[in-house]
Amino acid sequence: MLDTGRTARRLESYVQGAWRAGQGEGKPLANAATGEVHAYIGSDGLDFAGALDWGREVGGKALRQYTIHERALMLKEIGLKLMEMKDEFHAESLATGATARDAWPDIDGGIGTMLTFASKARRELPNAKVIPEGAVEGLSRDGSFVGQHILVPMQGVAIHINAFNFPVWGMLEKIAPALIAGMPCLVKPASATAYLSELVVRRILEMGILPDGALQIICGGVGDLLDHVTGQDIVTFTGSATTGRKLKSHPAIVENSVRFTMEADSLNAAILGPDAAPGTPEFDLFIKEVHREMTAKAGQKCTAIRRVLVPKAHEQAVIEALSERLGKTPLGLPDDANARMSALASLGDRDGVREKIAEIAREAEIVFGDPAKVALVSGDAEKGAFLNPVLLRCADPMNASAPHDIEAFGPVATVMAYEGLDQAIEMAMMGKGSLVSSVFTNDPDVAAELVIGVAPFHGRVMLGNRDSAKSSTGHGAPLAPLVHGGPGRAGGGEEMGGMRGVKHFMMRTAVQGTPRLLSAVTGEWVAGAPAEQGTHPFRKSLAELSIGDQLVTERRVITEEDVEHFANFTGDTFYAHMDSDAAKANPFFDDRVAHGYLIASFAAGLFVQPDPGPVLANYGVDNLRFLTPVYFGDSLQVQLTCKQINPREGTIYGEVRWDCRVTNQNDEVVAEYDVLTMVAKSWPLPQEG
Amino acid sequence: MLDTGRTARRLESYVQGAWRAGQGEGKPLANAATGEVHAYIGSDGLDFAGALDWGREVGGKALRQYTIHERALMLKEIGLKLMEMKDEFHAESLATGATARDAWPDIDGGIGTMLTFASKARRELPNAKVIPEGAVEGLSRDGSFVGQHILVPMQGVAIHINAFNFPVWGMLEKIAPALIAGMPCLVKPASATAYLSELVVRRILEMGILPDGALQIICGGVGDLLDHVTGQDIVTFTGSATTGRKLKSHPAIVENSVRFTMEADSLNAAILGPDAAPGTPEFDLFIKEVHREMTAKAGQKCTAIRRVLVPKAHEQAVIEALSERLGKTPLGLPDDANARMSALASLGDRDGVREKIAEIAREAEIVFGDPAKVALVSGDAEKGAFLNPVLLRCADPMNASAPHDIEAFGPVATVMAYEGLDQAIEMAMMGKGSLVSSVFTNDPDVAAELVIGVAPFHGRVMLGNRDSAKSSTGHGAPLAPLVHGGPGRAGGGEEMGGMRGVKHFMMRTAVQGTPRLLSAVTGEWVAGAPAEQGTHPFRKSLAELSIGDQLVTERRVITEEDVEHFANFTGDTFYAHMDSDAAKANPFFDDRVAHGYLIASFAAGLFVQPDPGPVLANYGVDNLRFLTPVYFGDSLQVQLTCKQINPREGTIYGEVRWDCRVTNQNDEVVAEYDVLTMVAKSWPLPQEG
Repeated sequence: MLDTGRTARRLESYVQGAWRAGQGEGKPLANAATGEVHAYIGSDGLDFAGALDWGREVGGKALRQYTIHERALMLKEIGLKLMEMKDEFHAESLATGATARDAWPDIDGGIGTMLTFASKARRELPNAKVIPEGAVEGLSRDGSFVGQHILVPMQGVAIHINAFNFPVWGMLEKIAPALIAGMPCLVKPASATAYLSELVVRRILEMGILPDGALQIICGGVGDLLDHVTGQDIVTFTGSATTGRKLKSHPAIVENSVRFTMEADSLNAAILGPDAAPGTPEFDLFIKEVHREMTAKAGQKCTAIRRVLVPKAHEQAVIEALSERLGKTPLGLPDDANARMSALASLGDRDGVREKIAEIAREAEIVFGDPAKVALVSGDAEKGAFLNPVLLRCADPMNASAPHDIEAFGPVATVMAYEGLDQAIEMAMMGKGSLVSSVFTNDPDVAAELVIGVAPFHGRVMLGNRDSAKSSTGHGAPLAPLVHGGPGRAGGGEEMGGMRGVKHFMMRTAVQGTPRLLSAVTGEWVAGAPAEQGTHPFRKSLAELSIGDQLVTERRVITEEDVEHFANFTGDTFYAHMDSDAAKANPFFDDRVAHGYLIASFAAGLFVQPDPGPVLANYGVDNLRFLTPVYFGDSLQVQLTCKQINPREGTIYGEVRWDCRVTNQNDEVVAEYDVLTMVAKSWPLPQEG
Repeated sequence: MLDTGRTARRLESYVQGAWRAGQGEGKPLANAATGEVHAYIGSDGLDFAGALDWGREVGGKALRQYTIHERALMLKEIGLKLMEMKDEFHAESLATGATARDAWPDIDGGIGTMLTFASKARRELPNAKVIPEGAVEGLSRDGSFVGQHILVPMQGVAIHINAFNFPVWGMLEKIAPALIAGMPCLVKPASATAYLSELVVRRILEMGILPDGALQIICGGVGDLLDHVTGQDIVTFTGSATTGRKLKSHPAIVENSVRFTMEADSLNAAILGPDAAPGTPEFDLFIKEVHREMTAKAGQKCTAIRRVLVPKAHEQAVIEALSERLGKTPLGLPDDANARMSALASLGDRDGVREKIAEIAREAEIVFGDPAKVALVSGDAEKGAFLNPVLLRCADPMNASAPHDIEAFGPVATVMAYEGLDQAIEMAMMGKGSLVSSVFTNDPDVAAELVIGVAPFHGRVMLGNRDSAKSSTGHGAPLAPLVHGGPGRAGGGEEMGGMRGVKHFMMRTAVQGTPRLLSAVTGEWVAGAPAEQGTHPFRKSLAELSIGDQLVTERRVITEEDVEHFANFTGDTFYAHMDSDAAKANPFFDDRVAHGYLIASFAAGLFVQPDPGPVLANYGVDNLRFLTPVYFGDSLQVQLTCKQINPREGTIYGEVRWDCRVTNQNDEVVAEYDVLTMVAKSWPLPQEG
């Protein structure tokens, strides 16, 4: 049962280092399913400019003292602890009208997203405060002037203005990349469900893991907050296009060129491929997915399927199958195990959805459901914001506008038939930019044509077929490694996308100078920067090793015997190594050449220090290029330089990347590559136990 | 001599497939140095909505028929031909008030930028219409559901609204990445110097290399153009912040979430390091660079140095040295060999700069020059927009605002003294976001502290010191491989940055599905997608080879003898291969392991086909990771699959990337990497001659 007996809670805002209630009693927030007052919200009288200053001065400065990995580890710890507390969040979530199934992507999905970011950041970004990005670019012929990009955290506050429908996920998917980047966050949840966001923030702050100022929350209006943004702040917005446009045009945002990311309305489509006729697994998957997207969270998802694009031939079959399934979708209280679907977030939302259905119905007919009538298995149709699913069908979709333009943010979709893939693509594009569309087909040609056709209008396209029936994460689920956002009507924003999402909160700066000075800035050795020779660098633990430590080896001559011996030993008797005439006929060679793998093997023989020591393993090689052919009699020398040191938090070792270049007797570079090793933090290794 | 005798030309716009003059005679444009009418401009009555439609329907569709490399080759051809015609552009450029030295970065630099894009695109992007971006992300445990991002051209028009000061570079640096991306361009040059942009576009279109609709130009006002933009169009703007903000807030741009890139005002700083005392090479370089940036193009550059930040101790020395140098800067007609500097773009601009100097002078004193007086070696001070350089000094820069806020867009800068690096950083940040700052120091610690400190506020930071004195491209020059733009006041935009700039004109879409369907979309083989075994794939030319062609080899057992043999042959006697106890003490190994290079060498021995054939060379290896240790007695097998085929335009071969995975007898992946080969387009090779 819902805990309708509890006293409604006065929500507070956490700003400037303390939980603060606004002036007055606050506005009541209703339980979506029962209509009872669940909480009171209000932020009147808070010092919003002060909150921004606090974030910048206290939170930002503190966060920037840590490395990327250290910040990611904070989030890992927070995520694991939140996962332990999730029952409390699920209980609170019932008040939003979400069933347990509805709450899963919000709560478990949100925490999982945070954990994915924490894990990917440590795998894919260096353990550093400054991230070098991309190649070192030569800017002069003599190599004395080079350039590279670095990424550093923006020095403002990331202001996240979130939607009501994902009070947990919507918050965590944004604060995770921002905090990893090193930017403090100020969260403004939508009022309707702010109690759940507030509860999660409360639990996070109680953990004492984040430095103060790294995370603030405003429950209630934001007052004059946006008047105080600067060019270092970032504003992200998820919600209605109308509000989004207003915020985007806010004078201080425009004046200061504040980065503004918007995720707004979206008339997402699901497209049934012509091959996916009734009776195929793809047809069944399509019906199941459209039904799921219409009914999950009662259709209150930015990614929900609003437009059901089907081949003319299968239109009737789709309508019948969908209607049958929609008819078996009991509506009731969120904690009623018999209910498959529950309430919208508020009675006002229900009025809004009914109005939108009426607008769409001017150009389409309702083929299932009646928006005016509510059928329930539990709950009160007057007090709770209940609405059964409604399916429409538009007979002339290429000449209609409402089904492509009007987003009924509830359990509503419109079936539209296409003739030919070109028309399906054109119809998808009539949504003017969407977050996601899905394509159900088992035909690779159909997949390629439809996906590439609709891609310019979509942030994500999901392909559904029999082989991913069990493993697919589904049309509606944005995933941490993939971008979430869409062009045009969808707001033009881009969130997540793995480490792309972290970079959204950083400044990319091109740095130019001599290799020596550039290297000092990036913390990585750059070819041409000074190097230090002395002790063999493989004798140094991370405690002793420095960027620029270098070994220049003896020379070794490669003979015909070496090449023949290697060929016979390995079995690699490729003609360019063995047959002089065939090698000469090859556009790249003047004669027989040494194997690339022989060059790399001899190089290792030249640079390796054999005694037990702090270098623990060679775990890989990156960007190996053979640049000059090696002929018999050529004499090779290796220059190995410590390029990047990446200590692993919580282990006894770290990754060391070595710049390895092999030259011949004419000082031509024969091969260059990065050698990747694991190196102990100290040597000898600490004793176990 | 200037060709003052010529008849002033009526500029035309190229829209909807034809050169069209607007209604009426057009507005006169004055020669900057002589005041005579050089051209007439006007676009009244043109069909701007029609131009956009034409670009989308005719230009965009045509461009998207080509691959990235084909489009890049068009630009290479155009760039080479423009370079041959450059004398004509230099002659026309005189009317803008640019000396030959001033015109070089605009004309030669602009064409060079286009050529750099054309070359980098073919090196760094695949020869395809769809660009896969980033790793394939596993989205399910069983590998049956995966995701990857693709990039496709946006389907609108790239509208480039350019500034008057770089009529050639400003146009070419934007159309090059857009056209390579596959987006048609519509250029709107600033009226004052539109004659030069129009001439270059005329020459480009006469070449007949670009498909019609790929490049349009509007000389004159843009009328209702922006009312017709959609979410697929992109608007880039370079110019004043006031205009930029107005455009950015344009209803259609906001309503449709049109990508808008702005490059506006910027109070760029040059910072003299504390180590760079008078007498050091860095001091001299600093003086030379500040002087150059104040006087080149008469200071009418977005990247020019406006704020001269120097250690308190060297303030007087800097003022003296700069004043001396500024005093030796003869001002005159642009084609006068005795003149080191010429006119501003218009008399109105001169009035504006004088007003700005007066505003700055309220918080600073003029220490060199007199804005009211003009001293010339040639030309007429009343008819031409001449202004000699003016240097100011602000005594209390931490409490001043005008020198940090007011951009006098002419030969004007303000010297400000700092005490300590923290203050230098704070002062640089008082510009509220700049395109570029430069730091002159020979001390790596100073370089690191200043660059990282100011980076969040800058798109680019240049380090100047003695070692790059000859090779440095200088403070003012944006370069094709590096980003150009800046946060906050600078507009928040990002242009160029190598292939990042191409991606600005593409849509990034996440695609999810089974490996088979994803592979069909990206055109690259994805692990888990079906593979075709049969003929050894090394026997196939590009004409015969397909994505997914696969070889699974025999097995080979690695013995202790193999490892010892390899160690002795190569000299790689690293302890983990040779010493059982030492290997066991290592956290990664249970016993002696085979060399990684031995595994890769044996793998090649297993997969290579030795006979002369279409595979011409192994030119490299990417992303090699050794994932499972190989112990004596382990049996290895290789699966080699054709992953990516990249034909090279204009050659007889192309690049083929092979997915190579080596497994042991337990089907554990021992090593995985990409093998890179050159493969002939046909076999046998075509006969030479």
